[in-house]
Amino acid sequence: MEKQSSRILEEAVEAFASLPGIGRKTALRMALHCIYQAPGKLEKFNTAIGKLGTDLQFCKKCHHISDNDICHVCNDSGRDHSLLCLVESVRDVLAIEETGHYRGVYHVLGGIISPIDGIGPEDLNISSLIHRCRQETIAEVIMAISPTIDGETTIYYLTKCLSEAGIDKVSILARGVAFGGELEYADELTLGRSIRARIPYQIAD
Amino acid sequence: MEKQSSRILEEAVEAFASLPGIGRKTALRMALHCIYQAPGKLEKFNTAIGKLGTDLQFCKKCHHISDNDICHVCNDSGRDHSLLCLVESVRDVLAIEETGHYRGVYHVLGGIISPIDGIGPEDLNISSLIHRCRQETIAEVIMAISPTIDGETTIYYLTKCLSEAGIDKVSILARGVAFGGELEYADELTLGRSIRARIPYQIAD
Repeated sequence: MEKQSSRILEEAVEAFASLPGIGRKTALRMALHCIYQAPGKLEKFNTAIGKLGTDLQFCKKCHHISDNDICHVCNDSGRDHSLLCLVESVRDVLAIEETGHYRGVYHVLGGIISPIDGIGPEDLNISSLIHRCRQETIAEVIMAISPTIDGETTIYYLTKCLSEAGIDKVSILARGVAFGGELEYADELTLGRSIRARIPYQIAD
Repeated sequence: MEKQSSRILEEAVEAFASLPGIGRKTALRMALHCIYQAPGKLEKFNTAIGKLGTDLQFCKKCHHISDNDICHVCNDSGRDHSLLCLVESVRDVLAIEETGHYRGVYHVLGGIISPIDGIGPEDLNISSLIHRCRQETIAEVIMAISPTIDGETTIYYLTKCLSEAGIDKVSILARGVAFGGELEYADELTLGRSIRARIPYQIAD
């Protein structure tokens, strides 16, 4: 799609097109939608987006996003604070929270160790993790980290760090074929490992 | 998808989800993307979008969007100002401009007559159209209006108005099966009319 002749429109199109998954055509549709909004509504839109940069904070404890110093998860006394789930990103916290299956707390690493991308342990929130493990009573750390090569490296590295910090119980997410997935579409590695790591079948009560 | 526990994030998600074609899941992805932007980039984004409401104008002549009082099309002396193309919206101007097949000028109606939606002739940019037709030398008016029931009504109404304003030559877009479209997917009405309105075949030189 060609550049817009209106500089103002073109800049708005470029702004929307900078969002993930948005091409210039969709960006134009969004910009044209905005043009016909009442001025107050566009201002409200801008305020909401702007606050992401100005008002949104990262929890001083777990690095999850938060409206305050400490996030709502860390502040929730009803949760199990001895169960710590290590995740790569804020997105992963939101995904796990959405499942409703976890009642412990989190620690957001802010990435995983990736030599190719030049991300080393010092770039991640590891020192604050070790600090937490020493200060708080943590019974178990769950590594909810993607089972990729970089992920495995990170898990290996962190397990060693945690062991030095006195954490003995470290677990990883269950691995195998996806629920509801067709076997023929599972990749070879997953399928092969799932056969070797097969589990006894139990009839549910 | 559930509401976000962070009020700031939730408001940003709602803002993005108010854009056309964006669901809450994509909106969340956009908001999370914004969180990790440098503050300056988010501000630039907001400025670009805000200008759509504050700085973008509508051309005083043709009602197309414009950075100035008069748009770049109306200001272009290289274009044929005696050929006027009537369109429903700014989007249609952009679509026709993209084709590169039109060198006349435009007039944006800002909608079409639609009794069901309560849009009457007085809600459209018709008085300025009549004014233009009386003041300027218009040789032909092209009705580039969707061939829907409301569109046909609008074309009928406008042709009568234009006739009173002294415009004799009014044309509509060619109608028939779409170029590159499979015949079997053309709707009955289009196909039937295309047979009746068949055109002599000429071998291109």
